[in-house]
Amino acid sequence: MTTLYNDPAKFADDMLAGFVDAHDDLVRAVPGGVVRAPRPRKGKVAVVVGGGSGHYPAFCGVVGPGFADGAVVGNVFTSPSTRQAVTVARAADAGGGVLLTYGNYAGDVMNFGLAEQRLNDAGIPARTVLVTDDVASASADEEGKRRGIAGDFAVFKIASAAAEEGLDLDGVADAATRANAATRSLGVAFDGCTMPGADEPLFTVPDGKVALGLGIHGEPGISEHESMTADELARLLVDGVLAERPAGAGTRVTAILNGLGRTKYEELFIVWKAVAALLRDEGLDVAAPEVGELVTSLDMAGCSLTLVFLDDDLERWWSAPALSPAYTKAPAAGWEVSEGERAAAIDPAELDPMAGIEPAGEQGRRTTGRILAALEAVGDVLHDHEDELGRIDAVAGDGDHGRGMVKGIDACLRTARAAAEKDAGPADALRIAGDAWATEAGGTSGVLWGAALAAFGARLPGDHRCETADLAAAAEAALDAVRNLGKAQVGDKTLVDALVPFVDSLKEAAGSSSDSASGVAWRRAAEAATTAARQTADLTPKLGRARPLADKSVGTPDAGATSLGMVVTAAADAAWPDD
Amino acid sequence: MTTLYNDPAKFADDMLAGFVDAHDDLVRAVPGGVVRAPRPRKGKVAVVVGGGSGHYPAFCGVVGPGFADGAVVGNVFTSPSTRQAVTVARAADAGGGVLLTYGNYAGDVMNFGLAEQRLNDAGIPARTVLVTDDVASASADEEGKRRGIAGDFAVFKIASAAAEEGLDLDGVADAATRANAATRSLGVAFDGCTMPGADEPLFTVPDGKVALGLGIHGEPGISEHESMTADELARLLVDGVLAERPAGAGTRVTAILNGLGRTKYEELFIVWKAVAALLRDEGLDVAAPEVGELVTSLDMAGCSLTLVFLDDDLERWWSAPALSPAYTKAPAAGWEVSEGERAAAIDPAELDPMAGIEPAGEQGRRTTGRILAALEAVGDVLHDHEDELGRIDAVAGDGDHGRGMVKGIDACLRTARAAAEKDAGPADALRIAGDAWATEAGGTSGVLWGAALAAFGARLPGDHRCETADLAAAAEAALDAVRNLGKAQVGDKTLVDALVPFVDSLKEAAGSSSDSASGVAWRRAAEAATTAARQTADLTPKLGRARPLADKSVGTPDAGATSLGMVVTAAADAAWPDD
Repeated sequence: MTTLYNDPAKFADDMLAGFVDAHDDLVRAVPGGVVRAPRPRKGKVAVVVGGGSGHYPAFCGVVGPGFADGAVVGNVFTSPSTRQAVTVARAADAGGGVLLTYGNYAGDVMNFGLAEQRLNDAGIPARTVLVTDDVASASADEEGKRRGIAGDFAVFKIASAAAEEGLDLDGVADAATRANAATRSLGVAFDGCTMPGADEPLFTVPDGKVALGLGIHGEPGISEHESMTADELARLLVDGVLAERPAGAGTRVTAILNGLGRTKYEELFIVWKAVAALLRDEGLDVAAPEVGELVTSLDMAGCSLTLVFLDDDLERWWSAPALSPAYTKAPAAGWEVSEGERAAAIDPAELDPMAGIEPAGEQGRRTTGRILAALEAVGDVLHDHEDELGRIDAVAGDGDHGRGMVKGIDACLRTARAAAEKDAGPADALRIAGDAWATEAGGTSGVLWGAALAAFGARLPGDHRCETADLAAAAEAALDAVRNLGKAQVGDKTLVDALVPFVDSLKEAAGSSSDSASGVAWRRAAEAATTAARQTADLTPKLGRARPLADKSVGTPDAGATSLGMVVTAAADAAWPDD
Repeated sequence: MTTLYNDPAKFADDMLAGFVDAHDDLVRAVPGGVVRAPRPRKGKVAVVVGGGSGHYPAFCGVVGPGFADGAVVGNVFTSPSTRQAVTVARAADAGGGVLLTYGNYAGDVMNFGLAEQRLNDAGIPARTVLVTDDVASASADEEGKRRGIAGDFAVFKIASAAAEEGLDLDGVADAATRANAATRSLGVAFDGCTMPGADEPLFTVPDGKVALGLGIHGEPGISEHESMTADELARLLVDGVLAERPAGAGTRVTAILNGLGRTKYEELFIVWKAVAALLRDEGLDVAAPEVGELVTSLDMAGCSLTLVFLDDDLERWWSAPALSPAYTKAPAAGWEVSEGERAAAIDPAELDPMAGIEPAGEQGRRTTGRILAALEAVGDVLHDHEDELGRIDAVAGDGDHGRGMVKGIDACLRTARAAAEKDAGPADALRIAGDAWATEAGGTSGVLWGAALAAFGARLPGDHRCETADLAAAAEAALDAVRNLGKAQVGDKTLVDALVPFVDSLKEAAGSSSDSASGVAWRRAAEAATTAARQTADLTPKLGRARPLADKSVGTPDAGATSLGMVVTAAADAAWPDD
């Protein structure tokens, strides 16, 4: 949905006014579009690009030193007029003539074609080069009928750099023609876009389908596919583009993975990971790729892959510096460290989470062994109850508590085993395993469990058998860590509600004269925790806190407190089975 | 909808791998995130930013010279872990200590807070500065509880530039603290986003509503409004942010108008136009604003306005050069014209479409007067039939033909009147008026009408009374212009179907010995055109052409041919009423 405008009929005008205001260091408005604000060198060929609006940064976003000299800006998805093209070209002209370059669409071809005639009639040498990169829009034997999509960006950039280098008009037109001949694109769409002021999308793609070759204004595609993974899409696009490799193409390429508007950078990077690997598998050498939104279609969902088969000239022009509102290619020079020396890079081994384990003595290793046994049992219980914890969490939260606990315990266990193999004592083992839990589980419960385990381990003895008093002190340290981090109080419906009675019960056992065995004390404490966890179902929700919390519905026990009860119960049975 | 991924659980990992591949000149991966690939100067304070994924370019997109030294990358909308933060910070450290800076969210506060402790414990001086710019998330007397949104970008940029300038850790932390204290944001949302792998959006905004203050992860907003214009939204955001102006704030500000993902640059520029005007009305002086996607939320629809109240230091740091994957601020130096002189800028008067009118003689002025009369009549007819033409067009096209014709004739008429006042002959008048038609109407019919009018006028005599032979020659020139541009044939269901019989009829009259009066001949030709236009309803659609056309449904007359018939009929009645 295109949401923000005043009068839909003034969409392009208002857009352009705001654009020029925000970028008045680089561009200035002229009737019909924009030209560079700082004037170029006298005699330089002016490169003027253009087309309908709705494709930002195409076309006005690429005006500036090293890139275009002017952009002709039409209404949304509508060719600018001949007069607009002539006016912008005349304002952009620096005495070296004008290259008009744009995507191959009927309205643009007419208007820029007429503009070329008029400019030449007026004594300003002008030439036009169409971009025809979209392999889905016509077959290879009708290449001239292909539409221009994200390949526009490559052709514009290369032609502009050739002009900046000082080539004359024929030379610049030749560079643009060579760039276009070397450029192939193929795109997909997942959903259409909505024109400003319209209630309905301009076109749609059926839910769960992928339209291959659908044009950037909704022109018909070539086939419809079931939704696919990023890896599968990468394969489809790479195969499709490479099938149209120009004759005589070498192995040096650049690539544009272009987002159409609603398909975001994160998704594009995931696809790019696969595309890059496939291109390398094909023996291609990818220089300076671009992954991002370069030729959009309002908020259309989809993306396209463009390959430009490079020669030395094309690569130099592609990589040349440029400074424009939407795209800057900074010169490599100027960013070096200017004084002093560079900092050394860290040795990757130092970042190994296993680094820093001090081998423990026999007692410490034995305690680590008990912890491992406890964690194995905890893992079984959490796997068995993953769905149940998810259901409880879903009542008041996002339902991912079971998943988080399982991810946490799995990582914790894997890491604790590895630490035990390095003879880690309980402090090292639980520090590293707690970190692993926090890292893999993520979220707030992850960091709380990680901190709790590390604090617990740090207070366990490495030099004597673990007694009830040790367990009580370790559990209290875990509670302190949780409270310091999360700031939760008893009654807030969090794991603190179960952890506090657990600690209290252990402390009471440790302080009593009966000096009960640690296993018995732990088991009793675990029962207290489980009971308290159930009681969280009866708590009045605490709303109105500064930080918005889920409403912690009354009648449902807290998922965090419930899982804490499960963990301490499982640990008791495994770690202290015979005490 | 987030569409592209492989395993949703690996979304952030896969994203990061693709990101690093695409930007390996600037960043390298370390466990937990990325650091700069070219190492900074030894002893420089490292600025490490971070948070959950899904906000690109926040956070990994801003790592590079002049900007951040490292970014800690969590799962989607999930805080990275303590270990991730520690690892990235250790890899980023250049010997000058580490500033950790991030938005104020519970998980981030816990994890970065623990990381700060661990780094200090490990002998790496570390400090943290939270970003709390979102005025909607807590009241002014609880500023410390406010969340961080797009103000993140400003605080990160300023802190990074201070570090680049050589300040020590306390100095950099102070710069970040000052930047945060000077930064205020307020956002709106129109629609929620979808987590990778989810079937349902994470949250929604009711259709047609605007949620003020809704957080970038869907945290509750402060009020819900009816949908509004871009100007109204600008007012809402500017008023909301200025109401929270920091004590002692001056008049120099910078601004970020940030898009959340689905709200595109065109829309942002429209809002920016209004925001900039309002800020100036308030007496504020806006330096180096940024309009674009800087802190997104997957494909969430919405935007936010951030103001940073600048002092000299903050402005220098904000404007300092930076080179990162997603954001480059090029040094002003280095882009000057290096040799020769700059081209002169064109005199704006030269771009005046009225330029170049040669005052005509009496006969020419009289013919221009007839044309004006004809255009007035044509305008009346087209206004009367705007809806009808739209309905006809909507059967096979996008329904805008009536609108386009009205916009065209209005612009044409206005311009022709102005040309007549400058004593233009028919050639000048119709050249300029045709241009105006094409420019205002846009689209393919606009350029065809513009070219037809210009060609028609160019063949009208300026020195004698307009006879049937002159009209026939002018009409034929118009037909040639239309055919050359549009390549349509008779039978294609376009205006050519009506224009050809019109021209044939006029030519026949001109060639006949009866030498009928021009008005009579024109009227007869107009009847032929109207008849032919009606007959387009019976034509078999011509499908399967290379360029996809609307299907030109059988049974409906062509809108372009119909309007041509109307135009020539109205012109006959007005221009040659007594011939």
